[in-house]
Amino acid sequence: MSILCRKDILRSDLLSDEELGLVLSTATRFEGALKAGDRLANMQGQILATLFFEPSTRTRLSFETAMLRLGGQVITVADPQTSSAAKGESLADSVRTVEGYADVIVIRHPRKGSAQEAADAVEVPVINAGDGAGQHPTQALLDVYTIQKERGSLRGLTVSLTGDLKNGRTVHSLAYLLTRFGVRLLLISPPGLEMPAEISADLRRAGAQIREDSDLAAAVRASDVVYVTRIQRERFEDPAQYERLKGSCVVDMALVRQGKPGITIMHPLPRMDEIGTEVDGYEGAAYFRQAANGVPIRMALLALVTGRE
Amino acid sequence: MSILCRKDILRSDLLSDEELGLVLSTATRFEGALKAGDRLANMQGQILATLFFEPSTRTRLSFETAMLRLGGQVITVADPQTSSAAKGESLADSVRTVEGYADVIVIRHPRKGSAQEAADAVEVPVINAGDGAGQHPTQALLDVYTIQKERGSLRGLTVSLTGDLKNGRTVHSLAYLLTRFGVRLLLISPPGLEMPAEISADLRRAGAQIREDSDLAAAVRASDVVYVTRIQRERFEDPAQYERLKGSCVVDMALVRQGKPGITIMHPLPRMDEIGTEVDGYEGAAYFRQAANGVPIRMALLALVTGRE
Amino acid sequence: MSILCRKDILRSDLLSDEELGLVLSTATRFEGALKAGDRLANMQGQILATLFFEPSTRTRLSFETAMLRLGGQVITVADPQTSSAAKGESLADSVRTVEGYADVIVIRHPRKGSAQEAADAVEVPVINAGDGAGQHPTQALLDVYTIQKERGSLRGLTVSLTGDLKNGRTVHSLAYLLTRFGVRLLLISPPGLEMPAEISADLRRAGAQIREDSDLAAAVRASDVVYVTRIQRERFEDPAQYERLKGSCVVDMALVRQGKPGITIMHPLPRMDEIGTEVDGYEGAAYFRQAANGVPIRMALLALVTGRE
Repeated sequence: MSILCRKDILRSDLLSDEELGLVLSTATRFEGALKAGDRLANMQGQILATLFFEPSTRTRLSFETAMLRLGGQVITVADPQTSSAAKGESLADSVRTVEGYADVIVIRHPRKGSAQEAADAVEVPVINAGDGAGQHPTQALLDVYTIQKERGSLRGLTVSLTGDLKNGRTVHSLAYLLTRFGVRLLLISPPGLEMPAEISADLRRAGAQIREDSDLAAAVRASDVVYVTRIQRERFEDPAQYERLKGSCVVDMALVRQGKPGITIMHPLPRMDEIGTEVDGYEGAAYFRQAANGVPIRMALLALVTGRE
Repeated sequence: MSILCRKDILRSDLLSDEELGLVLSTATRFEGALKAGDRLANMQGQILATLFFEPSTRTRLSFETAMLRLGGQVITVADPQTSSAAKGESLADSVRTVEGYADVIVIRHPRKGSAQEAADAVEVPVINAGDGAGQHPTQALLDVYTIQKERGSLRGLTVSLTGDLKNGRTVHSLAYLLTRFGVRLLLISPPGLEMPAEISADLRRAGAQIREDSDLAAAVRASDVVYVTRIQRERFEDPAQYERLKGSCVVDMALVRQGKPGITIMHPLPRMDEIGTEVDGYEGAAYFRQAANGVPIRMALLALVTGRE
Repeated sequence: MSILCRKDILRSDLLSDEELGLVLSTATRFEGALKAGDRLANMQGQILATLFFEPSTRTRLSFETAMLRLGGQVITVADPQTSSAAKGESLADSVRTVEGYADVIVIRHPRKGSAQEAADAVEVPVINAGDGAGQHPTQALLDVYTIQKERGSLRGLTVSLTGDLKNGRTVHSLAYLLTRFGVRLLLISPPGLEMPAEISADLRRAGAQIREDSDLAAAVRASDVVYVTRIQRERFEDPAQYERLKGSCVVDMALVRQGKPGITIMHPLPRMDEIGTEVDGYEGAAYFRQAANGVPIRMALLALVTGRE
């Protein structure tokens, strides 16, 4: 039985170094097996329940694919409107009922803390697929896995995080994880969307080398990896301000060409205008490979928490 | 081939004693196999279509789990908005089309009589998962199965049915079934929500021992099982009346402590305020086990009607 | 490897005669295996993604059934509201992400040309399940398959196409295919809903024998097959005109009795009033068999494009 057996995956920062290493190495092993055309049966006879109280096609399909690739089966609530929650049932009651059906639960919910609440209510392992302003640990894990695959190792890298660093739970979770691997962070965001001061302070306490900047081009030139995130229009009271600022974090080929040869471009997707589509053909454009990496990472988590890796 | 092979499951009161016994014993056998970790393959190569013209996450997931645990596969319409019915197709045409895809059909529909209508249109077995004000036979079956498991046997028991006994199709179906097992019934409901007179008369003709009462505490003291149902706000024209009455059917620990030691508390879920959450930790609180019992009961029905038990 | 391996199925008119023959013969073989009770495993370990950016229960369930009958698994987006597209993602980005999960993609989208767009974006095979006013090639293929099964062969047949021939992409695709088999076409539609002139011209250039007529009864008397389609109320500005015209294309038993003995009646479904329900019991009423034929045809396509037939 692995060290993660019967554990919940609620926050990426709660994983020990050993657990983190186990997730990454298990994902590598599963990905190798898939590439070799092996048929895996780790989850045969097991059922995953994907409960999406807030829609997220990408994350849901990725988890379902992971379960199916391991020989397991899936039951799903894709639409919050059709769920019992719409009838006023508490989250605890909903997941306790689903516990009677499934061997492992993946939950996405708009309320921060909801994944913890679900995990407290049931015995089966719960994996957090995003809890509002809270965490999205499997995204952070697949990001780290992607950097490791694209660059060989995380040691000694400089990674730029760009876009809305204030509201993006993805970049928060990722920043904590990267700090543990000794990665140097450059934070590039428009005025008003900077990384929250308490998170920056936290990261520095954890030994992070951080530099905040507003010059995207300089950051790109200094980086091995640029991690781009979306700036959402709805964050701005003044639409004109949005139009003025959004351009400041756009990555196009002119910018990529200023970077080191082979610089890696990442994005959690969906992508709007932050990365020009002409970048898609560039070999270091890793965002679709990054999305595909969600499958082996989630295979690893499903197998590890159910003791079937 | 069993006596239920190729039959439809439309109303619990249409099951003979022999059929009822077969469903319960088959469910017991399947539950034992699941607990022993056996992988079942009864439905391998078979497809279940779950057609939910009205959403019901709990019932849908329970049927899908049952099919998957038997090695079968599922196609599903979870959302009435995306169905052909939304384009004006008749129910008969919809199920005749699905008959070309699936080996067994589970249908939930807001109109009373719709399950019968579907069954009349097709050759494959149809299972009613709730037809409006009509029946919900698999709920009644899992309720009986739960009482049998929790109490050892149904013979000689006293069961209180509480809440909205006027509109609750679940308690109607259940009352008929319990009467056949010689169970003594106590009916506790707020004024205006009493069991319909024709059903009470029917039950008495069938030999039922029934007592209607408005004193919940006295009923609890006399009962082996208390079956609680929800009182829906929308049943009342006057909201103040709802607020005044809903408290009269609330089961909390103070009330449970007045009952016999080990008294069983049941609820079809979702639960609102009718049962205090502090009751959840009480060992006789059976409602989440009750929900889980839906899986073996539905496994039994799926296997029996397709001749694969 | 078959001649269709790794090809996209976007338009029925792009299939060569050899490819068309291969699809039909493979469907026949799969249907025979299903009827014999064989369990097929061609797609074992493979995942189909059904992406429905516009709902279509019938087509979606038919594809999912086809995949499951071949031993494969399915991930699905049934509801456009819950998809990433609702967040503004481009279709190309959506399918590129799904390519990281699935081995073959089926797409339904309201925009003409969208299936081609999806196919251009990914390496995995894409099957068009309807692209707005564009094509619906698998419907045309199952129609041809049905005629072949019902009549033994298509050679020398006379087929009436009735209803809205202006807007129906189904009849357009079908007309092109039937022309290649030397079928004689009678086109019967209310004034204003005639087959577009450029399509008729195209068909004639391809050697079609076509006659346009407004006398449904005469056409039925001359036909081996009558293919009925719906006249949608929303095509008319004047509701009174709709009421007046819709009756002109209704097929009832009185009309069927005027036809040749055993005349075949088809309809792509859903059916409204265009075919009286009293026709359902007539042995030549093939529309539900036609719907069921979607399964072997889609099994053939899934297996052929993934090289697993």
